[in-house]
Amino acid sequence: MTAVCEPAVYEKVALIGLGLIAGSMAWAMKRDGTAGEVRGYARSAESREMTRRLGFCDVVCDDLAEVVQDADLIVLATPVGVMGRVAETIAPHLKPGAVVIDVGSVKRTVIEEVAPHIPEGVHFVPCHPMAGTEHSGPASGFASLFDNRWCLIVPVEGTPEAEVARLESYWQRLGARTERMEPEHHDLVCAVVSHVPHLIAYTMVGVADDLRRVSDQEVIKFSAAGFRDFTRIAASDPTMWRDVFLTNKEATLEILGRFTEELFALQRAIRTGDGEQLHAYFTRTRAIRRGILQAGQDTDKPDFGRTR
Amino acid sequence: MTAVCEPAVYEKVALIGLGLIAGSMAWAMKRDGTAGEVRGYARSAESREMTRRLGFCDVVCDDLAEVVQDADLIVLATPVGVMGRVAETIAPHLKPGAVVIDVGSVKRTVIEEVAPHIPEGVHFVPCHPMAGTEHSGPASGFASLFDNRWCLIVPVEGTPEAEVARLESYWQRLGARTERMEPEHHDLVCAVVSHVPHLIAYTMVGVADDLRRVSDQEVIKFSAAGFRDFTRIAASDPTMWRDVFLTNKEATLEILGRFTEELFALQRAIRTGDGEQLHAYFTRTRAIRRGILQAGQDTDKPDFGRTR
Ligand SMILES: NC(=O)c1ccc[n+]([C@@H]2O[C@H](COP(=O)([O-])OP(=O)(O)OC[C@H]3O[C@@H](n4cnc5c(N)ncnc54)[C@H](OP(=O)(O)O)[C@@H]3O)[C@@H](O)[C@H]2O)c1
Ligand SMILES: NC(=O)c1ccc[n+]([C@@H]2O[C@H](COP(=O)([O-])OP(=O)(O)OC[C@H]3O[C@@H](n4cnc5c(N)ncnc54)[C@H](OP(=O)(O)O)[C@@H]3O)[C@@H](O)[C@H]2O)c1
Repeated sequence: MTAVCEPAVYEKVALIGLGLIAGSMAWAMKRDGTAGEVRGYARSAESREMTRRLGFCDVVCDDLAEVVQDADLIVLATPVGVMGRVAETIAPHLKPGAVVIDVGSVKRTVIEEVAPHIPEGVHFVPCHPMAGTEHSGPASGFASLFDNRWCLIVPVEGTPEAEVARLESYWQRLGARTERMEPEHHDLVCAVVSHVPHLIAYTMVGVADDLRRVSDQEVIKFSAAGFRDFTRIAASDPTMWRDVFLTNKEATLEILGRFTEELFALQRAIRTGDGEQLHAYFTRTRAIRRGILQAGQDTDKPDFGRTR
Repeated sequence: MTAVCEPAVYEKVALIGLGLIAGSMAWAMKRDGTAGEVRGYARSAESREMTRRLGFCDVVCDDLAEVVQDADLIVLATPVGVMGRVAETIAPHLKPGAVVIDVGSVKRTVIEEVAPHIPEGVHFVPCHPMAGTEHSGPASGFASLFDNRWCLIVPVEGTPEAEVARLESYWQRLGARTERMEPEHHDLVCAVVSHVPHLIAYTMVGVADDLRRVSDQEVIKFSAAGFRDFTRIAASDPTMWRDVFLTNKEATLEILGRFTEELFALQRAIRTGDGEQLHAYFTRTRAIRRGILQAGQDTDKPDFGRTR
């Protein structure tokens, strides 16, 4: 972490959407003085009121025009499905030289829907901080969410290098490491490391919930045998995830196709009793876990170090 | 937990297999004086040597006949695929009145393979403690593994009620709660809460590892977005899991069939852009998570309370 005495990277920051990501950004900015002033806006009066009580924004505004006025950095932190509409609404109120970023989990569709609304003289730089939890809403954010995590930056053509570099230093001040990526590649990588795993977890939990022959009570009692890990992921916000799948359709379907192909191969090995194939498969997958631990991307404590 | 001054439930306990489960049982017995003396045996000299160094058994024996001699409780804690053979080997050395249990993750096949070898006057009571971590081997056990977890007991016909009740109090002394279940139902419940989730996690990690267009380095770096949860499960012992799938074939294939059916329905909703169906599905699955948290079967800290 950088020393608190460094100057703010952006003087005025506006957060649109006040959930896990925006809240964590606000707390992280506070921790490090990354912004001069932070304003926030969310759709519902409840979320705005809650944010006022929690105190992670200097000002909470009741409309979109007000929150973006004079802002140097505007952060779209809503579900991806509404970002185009939000961009259209704020466009007339953006000041020249401002930077608009989004933190959406999908990049190609967001760029298609947001970029056309960005006025001349304003820069749009798509971002995706690769960190999250299963919780959502204003009360779920915390300052260390981005520490040691990667934030992918997906610049569109014509953005001045200086603006991208400044944004990189902004994310680094929030604790993240940054990397640039093409939108299509971003969406494919995320389909693999996030979107399809979430879909699968949702599906498995749905199956368990739906089975007549095994009661929900049994599923709940005996979940420690592996299943409960899936339920954590499948407790994530339904609106956010609906939008992710609808906007990253292509890459999701591609990876799902690969997944079912492999699953059928393993299913066949089980049916035919091919123990060697199963053993070889289960051995190979251990290497990836080792890599994640060595890269400091997870704890090696048993069971994630859960306390019970 | 019970006070330390209660008498031992079994005087002499023999552990066959010295991995996560046996090690945790030994540490838990020590914590609470549940056994007078604990002996252990594992296949390899390394595991036996490691166990001697770790000190969780009073005596480590170098052969099977020796370890079971005079034992009041014999615990089969090897992968399920070898339990039949182990039972056959120890059978002539069991003392009358002894109790043999297994801790295998599958019950119907284990009963079929073990029960025929159990001599007259010896009681075989299949058990399954529903707790584990992704680690294995003698060094992976710890005393609190079973605390507040369920141990399923699957008595076979003709076992005296007193023996089953005694075993229940044994598991309760190790920290577990007990419940009795029929073998077929056990295998189905475990297919849902454990076996199929493991297979799916292995598959997803295999897919990620195999994709040419996304590098392993990328998968590792960006795994915090959800994928790393799957890698934990997919780091579990390959031999144990091979045996689970080969011996719980029927229930695994049944639940897998249900899983792919649901997955195809969600895939179709993505393809056709049916946001309502996705949203409804993702909302329903949250209730199960809530149930697990209320039942005290998981932590509600974000991200399992991982420290990083
Ligand atoms: N959660 C993660 O793991 C994660 C990780 C990386 C990126 N992301 C991305 O980050 C974004 C935000 O996710 P989050 O987890 O922070 O979500 P969240 O906790 O559910 O918060 C979403 C926020 O957006 C607001 N909102 C919704 N519709 C709006 C509209 N039409 N106008 C203005 N505000 C609106 C909500 O307001 P109300 O409360 O009033 O409804 C809420 O404050 C999403 O695009 C997501 O894809 C999420
Ligand atoms: N891990 C879980 O999450 C979990 C949960 C509930 C139940 N279970 C069940 O518990 C049993 C043990 O699992 P675990 O996790 O403790 O496994 P583990 O840590 O891999 O240990 C297995 C032990 O069995 C020994 N072994 C293997 N083949 C043997 C043979 N032919 N004769 C004697 N010993 C042999 C191994 O000896 P070497 O070290 O010398 O190879 C090792 O000590 C399995 O049946 C599993 O299905 C596991």
